[in-house]
Amino acid sequence: MEQPAEGTIKIDRLQPGKPQGLVVVITGNGKGKTTSAMGMVLRACGHGLKSCVIQFMKGDLYSGEWDGVKRLGELVELHATGKGFCGIRGNPYSREEHRANAQAAIGLAREKLLSGGFDLVILDEINNAVRHRLVDLEQLLDLLAVRPERVHLVLTGRNAAEEVIERADTVSEVNEIKHAYRRQIEPQPGIDY
Amino acid sequence: MEQPAEGTIKIDRLQPGKPQGLVVVITGNGKGKTTSAMGMVLRACGHGLKSCVIQFMKGDLYSGEWDGVKRLGELVELHATGKGFCGIRGNPYSREEHRANAQAAIGLAREKLLSGGFDLVILDEINNAVRHRLVDLEQLLDLLAVRPERVHLVLTGRNAAEEVIERADTVSEVNEIKHAYRRQIEPQPGIDY
Repeated sequence: MEQPAEGTIKIDRLQPGKPQGLVVVITGNGKGKTTSAMGMVLRACGHGLKSCVIQFMKGDLYSGEWDGVKRLGELVELHATGKGFCGIRGNPYSREEHRANAQAAIGLAREKLLSGGFDLVILDEINNAVRHRLVDLEQLLDLLAVRPERVHLVLTGRNAAEEVIERADTVSEVNEIKHAYRRQIEPQPGIDY
Repeated sequence: MEQPAEGTIKIDRLQPGKPQGLVVVITGNGKGKTTSAMGMVLRACGHGLKSCVIQFMKGDLYSGEWDGVKRLGELVELHATGKGFCGIRGNPYSREEHRANAQAAIGLAREKLLSGGFDLVILDEINNAVRHRLVDLEQLLDLLAVRPERVHLVLTGRNAAEEVIERADTVSEVNEIKHAYRRQIEPQPGIDY
């Protein structure tokens, strides 16, 4: 990376007086929720922080971040545990299979959150999984309750529950103003997956 | 990364019949615009695509993505050309200095966009730079007009111009529902910078 030439600009480095784990929720119907979570992983790596990503609904469709995070090396663990979007047309798995999968994933999430091995834990599409009752809201609220204070927890997916939003520190809603697929433009690698 | 066990799930790989560069705008006042752009960089890397990031307003304050992208290797170029947010309290540079900087950055953006060397070009905080007239709207519209069809162009920052939104394929607005800083929680590395 090219930084400003020495002497032309002073680069400040923030350092919080009180390091504190945050609960971040990224919800809404627009493009950029998982993507934003992946950006946090990249940024965390720059600070030498360790991230664990658990993808709840994804796993049946290749996405670039699977290989992208490999380039980040030992600082990131990614588990694509899902069987695709439950209820979406063409998805061949039963509700019971989706639920069993999501239940294993929430167990894994709890284990990783409490392991002491990560600074940042991302539960990708967890809001969707709760909405479709693949995970019980109580299970997610339990994770929020037991989260070690120093660990950041990022929860993505549309339709975040009110109870989750209440307990979060930072909540963004990503709204769709326009999306290429509405003009029959196919999903493009690097941008859409 | 841990993928589903062989045989339990079939992993599909999308492949667009017509690869097409998209113009993506990420605007709004919420957390997750630059972050989302960084996620696209990570994802693009997974597909073996080359990205160039030019940061317009940033450069005076260390951000984790600067070192994060180094881990991605030769697939990413990042230029933090800014002198911080123009007009923000405490920023020591004059409007003229900010404008000269942004003008150099837009020249660089044009060069990189037309170079043939990148699949994805990200102009981080360009919308803000246009809003503050550090870059003329016409200069940005010119980039949109000359963009090679196969190159993705991602434009971030609040207050995206209507003319830019009109010309984009995908536009997301990230709205703040809550932000930790409003409760006097300091910015945290990995999440906020």
